[in-house]
Amino acid sequence: MPEGGTGKRLKICGWGYEGNDPTPEEHRLIEAGIAERFGVTDTELVPPPTEAEIELAKPRVGIPETLEAFCSAGTYDRALHMYGKSCPDYVRQLNRVFEHAPDFVAYPRSEDEIEAVLDWATGARVAVIPFGGGSSVVGGVEPKVGDGFAGAITLNLKHFDKVLEIDETSRAARVQAGTFGPALEAQLKPHGKTFRYYPQSFEFSTLGGWIATRGGGHYATVMTHVDDLVESVRALTMKGVYESFRLPGSGAGPSPDRLLIGSEGALGVITEAWVRLQDRPVHRAGTSVAFDDFYKAAECVRAMTQSGLYPTNCRLLDRNEARANGVADGSADILVLAFESADHPVEAWMERALEICRDMGGRPDSDQLQAKAGGHREGASGAWRNAFIRMPYLRDATMGRGLCMDTFETAITWERFPEFHAKIKAKVEQTIREVTGRPGLVTCRFTHVYADGPAPYFSFYAYTGLAGMLEGWWAIKTAASDLLNELGGTITHHHAVGRDHMTWYQKQRPEPFAAALSAAKTALDPAGILNPGVLLPPQPGG
Amino acid sequence: MPEGGTGKRLKICGWGYEGNDPTPEEHRLIEAGIAERFGVTDTELVPPPTEAEIELAKPRVGIPETLEAFCSAGTYDRALHMYGKSCPDYVRQLNRVFEHAPDFVAYPRSEDEIEAVLDWATGARVAVIPFGGGSSVVGGVEPKVGDGFAGAITLNLKHFDKVLEIDETSRAARVQAGTFGPALEAQLKPHGKTFRYYPQSFEFSTLGGWIATRGGGHYATVMTHVDDLVESVRALTMKGVYESFRLPGSGAGPSPDRLLIGSEGALGVITEAWVRLQDRPVHRAGTSVAFDDFYKAAECVRAMTQSGLYPTNCRLLDRNEARANGVADGSADILVLAFESADHPVEAWMERALEICRDMGGRPDSDQLQAKAGGHREGASGAWRNAFIRMPYLRDATMGRGLCMDTFETAITWERFPEFHAKIKAKVEQTIREVTGRPGLVTCRFTHVYADGPAPYFSFYAYTGLAGMLEGWWAIKTAASDLLNELGGTITHHHAVGRDHMTWYQKQRPEPFAAALSAAKTALDPAGILNPGVLLPPQPGG
Repeated sequence: MPEGGTGKRLKICGWGYEGNDPTPEEHRLIEAGIAERFGVTDTELVPPPTEAEIELAKPRVGIPETLEAFCSAGTYDRALHMYGKSCPDYVRQLNRVFEHAPDFVAYPRSEDEIEAVLDWATGARVAVIPFGGGSSVVGGVEPKVGDGFAGAITLNLKHFDKVLEIDETSRAARVQAGTFGPALEAQLKPHGKTFRYYPQSFEFSTLGGWIATRGGGHYATVMTHVDDLVESVRALTMKGVYESFRLPGSGAGPSPDRLLIGSEGALGVITEAWVRLQDRPVHRAGTSVAFDDFYKAAECVRAMTQSGLYPTNCRLLDRNEARANGVADGSADILVLAFESADHPVEAWMERALEICRDMGGRPDSDQLQAKAGGHREGASGAWRNAFIRMPYLRDATMGRGLCMDTFETAITWERFPEFHAKIKAKVEQTIREVTGRPGLVTCRFTHVYADGPAPYFSFYAYTGLAGMLEGWWAIKTAASDLLNELGGTITHHHAVGRDHMTWYQKQRPEPFAAALSAAKTALDPAGILNPGVLLPPQPGG
Repeated sequence: MPEGGTGKRLKICGWGYEGNDPTPEEHRLIEAGIAERFGVTDTELVPPPTEAEIELAKPRVGIPETLEAFCSAGTYDRALHMYGKSCPDYVRQLNRVFEHAPDFVAYPRSEDEIEAVLDWATGARVAVIPFGGGSSVVGGVEPKVGDGFAGAITLNLKHFDKVLEIDETSRAARVQAGTFGPALEAQLKPHGKTFRYYPQSFEFSTLGGWIATRGGGHYATVMTHVDDLVESVRALTMKGVYESFRLPGSGAGPSPDRLLIGSEGALGVITEAWVRLQDRPVHRAGTSVAFDDFYKAAECVRAMTQSGLYPTNCRLLDRNEARANGVADGSADILVLAFESADHPVEAWMERALEICRDMGGRPDSDQLQAKAGGHREGASGAWRNAFIRMPYLRDATMGRGLCMDTFETAITWERFPEFHAKIKAKVEQTIREVTGRPGLVTCRFTHVYADGPAPYFSFYAYTGLAGMLEGWWAIKTAASDLLNELGGTITHHHAVGRDHMTWYQKQRPEPFAAALSAAKTALDPAGILNPGVLLPPQPGG
């Protein structure tokens, strides 16, 4: 089934639409990179399985007659909703492991049809996995729900793809939850507005998914999480419609929206939201700043976040991250810095920001600054953006050659950051050596920054070979997560909890909060059928 | 008992410390104002009752031996914790109505002592009202808990008054919940830091109270609510310590902090929090801007909020509000506008802001702008600040003369604002005429502003006489609240829900959220003894 009116089909295995694969040149670069960095010269690409290769278990439950009009138990549909887009998801696909497919997939076209699904599933004791774009990298949409259920189905919101209202005065829109990033922007553009929310998954994720996972977007400061962009949320629960007043702000009790934001499909099915829009920026200033010392660069970012200048982009890439993304040659750490505005020239902001950089030993790229003022996407920041969008495609080809690559992200306060970073990096490097018998690569960038701390985003590369990749990945993931939990970092800044982070999430959230959340879940979903196993252990009722 | 190390006792009835009363000059102005505006020339001041006049019912429960060391059933203590500082609270005091005093007051000095109180109260089925500064204007601390309890006591956090840690690097502090505004700033000042949170109650409210009520502070934009200033919260619940990781940001499930922020003492007793600090500003630009049309001025504020300039102060006062506060003569609506920074001169910001004002027909006060650059508090903004601080004192004397004055506040999106404002103002004016037989005064200002809407704050004045004041107040309050609920405004932007707003809060929150909150409450407080009747109807367990 084509997605988002594009006429294209999503790949079952790997990133993107069918037909959008790495180019021969990209394949060559990947091969060369693996040879240079890991000394492995004989890699062979294991291709993802074709649809014909995929054999699924027989469905445990059939499609009831009442839902037939909008459900499918076809192999493509079931296989497409079996995994998200994480490293272990793709490894299992490359290894031809096809477990936990949903018994069927529902594509409701109205809230009534969603309610019909929920009613039937409650009675039939079948788990329901709400599904937006399926780009989860944390096992958030995998129908692995345990034995307490008669089956598991996926609820795909793709038909909820419209911008229903635009309020140009207050700069807000009422948007259906299944609207993908490009479709959202296309519907806003004629009104001169933009949501300006560009996660790496932008093309393949939806507003509902962003809200359900507390995702992070375009802005490095102020409006970092989708939380900051939501006026009100509408969700269907077993206890009726959960819809807050549309408000710019409120102080009436604990925020109802904040209980739904980050609920990962476990409390209700988000169907629409009023979100805050921006005017399309017309003034821009951007450049990159080189540093000789990563921690000095981090100090600069700290000063920047504490200045009240609120840059739009303020992403620090360590030298290896900069090199891996083609942003620089690896001889310096790079701060990608930008201001944008629909209202006023931003030179005064950039001038002061560059003063701060120079005071901290940074070397701004002045050529690039000029080019940016002309509106072009050039230099390091343009390179960074292109690499950012292209990365998930390349990862598939890289993993297909036996190189395990993944990312994990967190947040920590500034005063703990240098030790935190050094220890995490050392621990992951050590674990890679132990697991693979050779050195790996661990890089770090900041995705979002706050006056009280950064959100560091780590990437790691370990030559495990395909056979050892799943086990190797888990060993590295465990070592990293154990340590960042021990050092007080959050287990996720914007990737969500899903099933992969549950062990650490349960350790670091307040125990009484877990009790409150569990009680709230039981109140809203007494049968416990909504995405069981995320946020809370599966607790089938009835 | 002296508060916050000041050596002064709080008044039982009315605002502030004992001895701090309106001056003869202020009394004269109040008398003249009532005569001029309402034509009532024979007002006589009814003084608040003395301690000797206050007769309380015999306590229903005595202080158990285990808690004796830090509890009191003295008249001063019980009477001080009977009411908050709302209009109906003071009317009842003037009318010598003394109901619902707590049976005794606990002043725990440690978390162990708090736990001892909670344990005893759970067993004894006694309601416990957590109490910070007692400045609630919504019935948030009144021990009116219904018949389901054996008694009710107040838990005063005044001994939790220390800044425990300061992290200058990340600009944050660990602060005990009972710390009053001035004590907090005094402890931060030697470190060059400030919390910059100045509600009108600043002198008589505490960090724990600000968090429990989702209060609003100094900043008109970006960091409007205390929510934005909290890194983590620590609370004692019946299910153990509820304490989140200290983080600059997180995306791990629904925010544990956001469930506690605004919980109004119903889920747990907040004992401390890590909060975000600011450097003390050294650059300032401020002025006032006069407008001939209030809605045009509102349009200007809208443009300002959507500009991304993020002014520190951006408070629009309608002409009557400006006059009542001595800010201007009542011939124009006044926007009080300011930028401040510890990092950079703010001229570029102010220049663009004034361009926006001029484009919208505003007339900036250029004399004042110069004075402000010199660091003085002069002109309209200085006058505004002084009136803001002095107002609660004057209210006591005004009400003592039979003039009912109160405020209510809300938030609404911009596109609905003009009609919303006009209808609310007309409705309240009409109700005042019906209730009092003569015209009243209804004024409006913006306390906080967002890109998608303002937080309008209404004040009303109705000459009810003291005898008719409680009933008259309730009629006006009901008319205003009914209408703002009907028109989609929040029942409170930063004053909290308390007992006074429950009717409307229950109407406007999502029903499934109420079920979830109720379940969470039962999970954390199974006996239902924590501040029963706020956020949820009293639900005594056991």
